[in-house]
Amino acid sequence: MVWTKKDLLALEDLSREEIELILSTAQSFKEVSTREIKKVPALRGKTVVNLFFEPSTRTRVSFEVAAERLSADVINIASETSSVRKGETLIDTGRNIEALKADIIVIRHNASGAAAMLARHVHISVVNAGDGWHEHPTQALLDIFTLKEKLGKIEGLNVSIIGDIAHSRVARSNIWGLTKLGVKVTVCAPQMLIPPAIEQMGVHVTSDIDEALGEADAANVLRMQFERDEETAFPQQLEYFKTFGITKERLAKAKKNIVVMHPGPINRGVEMSSEVADGPNSVILEQVTNGIAVRMAVLFLVAQAQDKKYEDTN
Amino acid sequence: MVWTKKDLLALEDLSREEIELILSTAQSFKEVSTREIKKVPALRGKTVVNLFFEPSTRTRVSFEVAAERLSADVINIASETSSVRKGETLIDTGRNIEALKADIIVIRHNASGAAAMLARHVHISVVNAGDGWHEHPTQALLDIFTLKEKLGKIEGLNVSIIGDIAHSRVARSNIWGLTKLGVKVTVCAPQMLIPPAIEQMGVHVTSDIDEALGEADAANVLRMQFERDEETAFPQQLEYFKTFGITKERLAKAKKNIVVMHPGPINRGVEMSSEVADGPNSVILEQVTNGIAVRMAVLFLVAQAQDKKYEDTN
Amino acid sequence: MVWTKKDLLALEDLSREEIELILSTAQSFKEVSTREIKKVPALRGKTVVNLFFEPSTRTRVSFEVAAERLSADVINIASETSSVRKGETLIDTGRNIEALKADIIVIRHNASGAAAMLARHVHISVVNAGDGWHEHPTQALLDIFTLKEKLGKIEGLNVSIIGDIAHSRVARSNIWGLTKLGVKVTVCAPQMLIPPAIEQMGVHVTSDIDEALGEADAANVLRMQFERDEETAFPQQLEYFKTFGITKERLAKAKKNIVVMHPGPINRGVEMSSEVADGPNSVILEQVTNGIAVRMAVLFLVAQAQDKKYEDTN
Repeated sequence: MVWTKKDLLALEDLSREEIELILSTAQSFKEVSTREIKKVPALRGKTVVNLFFEPSTRTRVSFEVAAERLSADVINIASETSSVRKGETLIDTGRNIEALKADIIVIRHNASGAAAMLARHVHISVVNAGDGWHEHPTQALLDIFTLKEKLGKIEGLNVSIIGDIAHSRVARSNIWGLTKLGVKVTVCAPQMLIPPAIEQMGVHVTSDIDEALGEADAANVLRMQFERDEETAFPQQLEYFKTFGITKERLAKAKKNIVVMHPGPINRGVEMSSEVADGPNSVILEQVTNGIAVRMAVLFLVAQAQDKKYEDTN
Repeated sequence: MVWTKKDLLALEDLSREEIELILSTAQSFKEVSTREIKKVPALRGKTVVNLFFEPSTRTRVSFEVAAERLSADVINIASETSSVRKGETLIDTGRNIEALKADIIVIRHNASGAAAMLARHVHISVVNAGDGWHEHPTQALLDIFTLKEKLGKIEGLNVSIIGDIAHSRVARSNIWGLTKLGVKVTVCAPQMLIPPAIEQMGVHVTSDIDEALGEADAANVLRMQFERDEETAFPQQLEYFKTFGITKERLAKAKKNIVVMHPGPINRGVEMSSEVADGPNSVILEQVTNGIAVRMAVLFLVAQAQDKKYEDTN
Repeated sequence: MVWTKKDLLALEDLSREEIELILSTAQSFKEVSTREIKKVPALRGKTVVNLFFEPSTRTRVSFEVAAERLSADVINIASETSSVRKGETLIDTGRNIEALKADIIVIRHNASGAAAMLARHVHISVVNAGDGWHEHPTQALLDIFTLKEKLGKIEGLNVSIIGDIAHSRVARSNIWGLTKLGVKVTVCAPQMLIPPAIEQMGVHVTSDIDEALGEADAANVLRMQFERDEETAFPQQLEYFKTFGITKERLAKAKKNIVVMHPGPINRGVEMSSEVADGPNSVILEQVTNGIAVRMAVLFLVAQAQDKKYEDTN
């Protein structure tokens, strides 16, 4: 199996073998971050551009650290300060970055499909760091990597994804990735946060949190976004926690070694109690650590595919 | 010919030989960005500070990439977050950066003369990345570099600069650079956007776009800034495009190989049609690519001049 | 004397020997910034995260340059763009940074004790870059380093700290550091800007600027923050300058070689006249230069302590 795609846009596009190749590549990069000198020269002299149209410290920093550990140069462009404010189109922005002879664009955008559109218009690599409600493939890959690390396998597992499924690119990418790898996926949310026809993605649907936790080997708990108006947000949060929040009591009825994941940042007391977030079942910080290895793997593979194509045409 | 200036402030200050030295140095750096490992150690262990008092992703990123390809360390300071908000003067800011033992300050400022004033008060190098309506020398240098690359020579060419001449530092730097190199320069704009006495800079003036394109070997099309009020901006833009916009039809009456340039970001349908922007005469993305080489050359030359002076006094 | 602390949080916590170790380490790093290639590989492959919850170009840039001269990778996180906006706690932010396998967090925060709290909850190093009105230890260390460099010794000196003592973490860190090293410290401010019971820190208190300057070997002049309302700020500033501003006339009555320090940015004509700021007694820019050496020393020592601990437990 050799990686040949110049871009990483969506887990929907990938074969099981491609997903497994990313995971095994990440496995070999994970060790780098435990060294005294946390650096390999794999992408030395390459330029990675973080092009973020939505604020996101966590994902931006994770990609930045990953690129630096591969010895790449990193340029950060945030929408607030970009030419986009001057009305430039995304395609023009992308072509300009390409003209700088950058090698990889890591893009976060609030429009679904933005990464794919960019990728069609530039020859350099594009990595989707989240596009609208569509996909956030590296988040799902790091979730799956962490699952495999904790449980020793992926195929045949039961994984429940809990929270706002309708507006979550993390949920969509996880569903694509997990089902391709033979996982039985359950999604659990209030009725109004379950997208119509989600069953066609091959998942079981429930609004009963205890059912979702019942047979689950892992619970991937999504971040909830409530209204910014504190007066209405607070009672909503309380209500959500009462009905869907992961607590020690609810976990007591689940499998003993159930793995609890969360893409962060956690709202303690909303999606889960602090006891659970910091408890023995939580792998939330391991997810962050694995995010570096997975993103190193993705950056490395797409850059390599580009070099290969370059060699082929020369 | 050896470069001896510690700063690059304005093309007005440079001799023809100095401009040609920058261009030939850029030529030798251009190849670096085509390598597998796009890096040379020329400025290793040097610190370049990007001091930007106006938002500018394009120019900031171009200098940042150029500095990184020379292996320099880059520090970005944007006015929004700088001590300037606390009332520090530009000279104090500059002296503080000098005290950090930085080597080069790349400054963008909304006041004409800011770069020169800074340069007089610090011993380290200052590179003007745009000061008010005064000059933007590296933009003009990359324009000229691109012209030479496309047309094989500079002397004797006819170049038309089209757009808001009155408020354009890009126009001013181009006029200085091009006339020094023996180019016949025409400026073309609505009457109210032509600065008084511009003819004294040795340029021909017209408000007739077809005349401007008639004999031109190249058209350098400036970015137009209309009012932010959409209601008034849109009809103004339409009117501008009708009278001055570069279209396929207008180009059909010009020289077959006329080179169309634009400093970016383009307003498609205002300064030129998309057909032209993406068409065979456009070198807009090549300008971006050449910007890296030209800025590498400038950073390299000013740093070298400083080292030379340092050696001389030791 | 070997450094064993993983963090640098406050000069209150340090012994005289520890302070002296930082100063002597800084002495050996100072030479690096005078080299042609201003870089040593001491922290190669380490990741330093600048986590700034208050805007501060000067301190952030100083730490960034220091880390780069040690060959570390630097990640900047500013509160405006951080997950903190999404309600994440400081401890969660810190643990996430730790999970990235970063090595050092440099934190600036508006809450006193923030750095110490963070340090208790992560295993990696925490360096306090200013926490509320509590401490700003690296500023005091660079002040002391500069004093020693200019005056050849520290013990037995008379140092006056002038300005808003009540709200100054710079004052507090200086008082702790200087008194531990055997300096006689005087604080001088308007009555309302002297914190109650400050004498218990072992300092002499006065509101008479001439008395404060009388026997002083050095005057450390703090930055004054007046209301943003210009109408009221201007008369207040004039009044402050008249009563406490350092002028050539006032210095004429002081010791001939009195050292004038200021953490910057200076309000010229408020805390001191321009004549004094740029005069022969001022060491303000030397403080900036020494800040790099001191911060290199601090980053190096805390990273080393961590490595040592790591070896001990393996």
